[in-house]
Amino acid sequence: MKKSVLINKNIPDGKGRECILLLSGGLDSSTLLACLTRRNWIVNALTFNYGQKHSIEIKLSKKLSKHFSCKRHIIFDLPLNRIVKSALTSPSIKVPAGGTSKGIPVTYVPARNLIFLSIAVAWAETTGIKDIFIAVSSVDFSGYPDCREAFINSFEEVAQVATKMGVEDQKIKIHAPLMHLSKRETILMGLEAGLDYFLTSSCYNPDKKGKPCGKCDACLLRKKGFEESGFKDPRIEKW
Amino acid sequence: MKKSVLINKNIPDGKGRECILLLSGGLDSSTLLACLTRRNWIVNALTFNYGQKHSIEIKLSKKLSKHFSCKRHIIFDLPLNRIVKSALTSPSIKVPAGGTSKGIPVTYVPARNLIFLSIAVAWAETTGIKDIFIAVSSVDFSGYPDCREAFINSFEEVAQVATKMGVEDQKIKIHAPLMHLSKRETILMGLEAGLDYFLTSSCYNPDKKGKPCGKCDACLLRKKGFEESGFKDPRIEKW
Repeated sequence: MKKSVLINKNIPDGKGRECILLLSGGLDSSTLLACLTRRNWIVNALTFNYGQKHSIEIKLSKKLSKHFSCKRHIIFDLPLNRIVKSALTSPSIKVPAGGTSKGIPVTYVPARNLIFLSIAVAWAETTGIKDIFIAVSSVDFSGYPDCREAFINSFEEVAQVATKMGVEDQKIKIHAPLMHLSKRETILMGLEAGLDYFLTSSCYNPDKKGKPCGKCDACLLRKKGFEESGFKDPRIEKW
Repeated sequence: MKKSVLINKNIPDGKGRECILLLSGGLDSSTLLACLTRRNWIVNALTFNYGQKHSIEIKLSKKLSKHFSCKRHIIFDLPLNRIVKSALTSPSIKVPAGGTSKGIPVTYVPARNLIFLSIAVAWAETTGIKDIFIAVSSVDFSGYPDCREAFINSFEEVAQVATKMGVEDQKIKIHAPLMHLSKRETILMGLEAGLDYFLTSSCYNPDKKGKPCGKCDACLLRKKGFEESGFKDPRIEKW
């Protein structure tokens, strides 16, 4: 494959500007980090410690932000597990084996991306940064409402009326460049950017060392993506 | 004045339903709490410890939620002061004397109500509550963009597309019944509900015991409201 073809096609050129990236340490946001760096963005990473069971991703986000030379990286403590019920945060709700549920699965965390983006907007206003990136996709996804394009568009509108930046006619742009990419395409793009996928964790239910369960929705989507890409997943291979 | 005239005119009847109220412990949200209780709402109060200098309001919110028999009261830790700069959260920025600044003042906290409402939506989804109250007003206010009706309307839209409740066609309603009330009207309504305004603090810069400075925007707006109401402010009188 020709170098950076997918990156140049899907990621806007930063031209040396700063952006904020919601970085979970999962496959998608880590791919986006790698590609943004390639496309001349100076990345400020924002990671949430929201009481997720799979907190291994926070450790990985630190390695990733260091590896890709983020300008700043904030791990923001947000005790969401105090007010929400979700298989990702509640000890009493088991992470289910994937592919079985209809509709929105129990791994849905109420209003998660709404809250995460709102906090990103606060940081953007403070730093004067106008570009916020989020690695949601509505292809090969778990059916979460806050991963759809309609949500991103609506959020961009509310961010504009909620803020001083908006009142002063400075446009806050929410970029979701993976929105229409399959997992396969996302992975191929990350490989173009030289991302070592061993540094990313998708599993909702890893063991203490971070080994993925191989059964949850996130593991199945990742597995499908790697199979279709023709590459092996180092996160599976290296254990 | 006939009892509950203003309350009945401005606050919808809860008919025994539950709601979530963003309760700061300031004049407006405390008034709303008192009135909601009168209007047959079962109130779940949500207060944010976001690093505000005037944290006296958090202590007062606890007294208020107890006094008005809230079903639940969550004090939510949100380290906003890590990522925003504002006279309300940054030690290096002084709270200015009021009435002097043009445009949006330095006491503006970036995206505050956007974040607070987003977290309220997460709690609403988890508890199945569909009514969220916020005590913003665009009359006699400090010029914050996130206190305007345009913001509330836009937020209601994004809450609908961001959530499972929205996808399932359950309407999440953001109520801002003080939006078009002057401080005078708000105070008269609170007095109808029997609120002791000594239990509420508006000042951005109180002393350690909670005594208001009398000079900041919030103090001046409150002073004007009480003067126009014809009543004395017990928060001023009782020191």
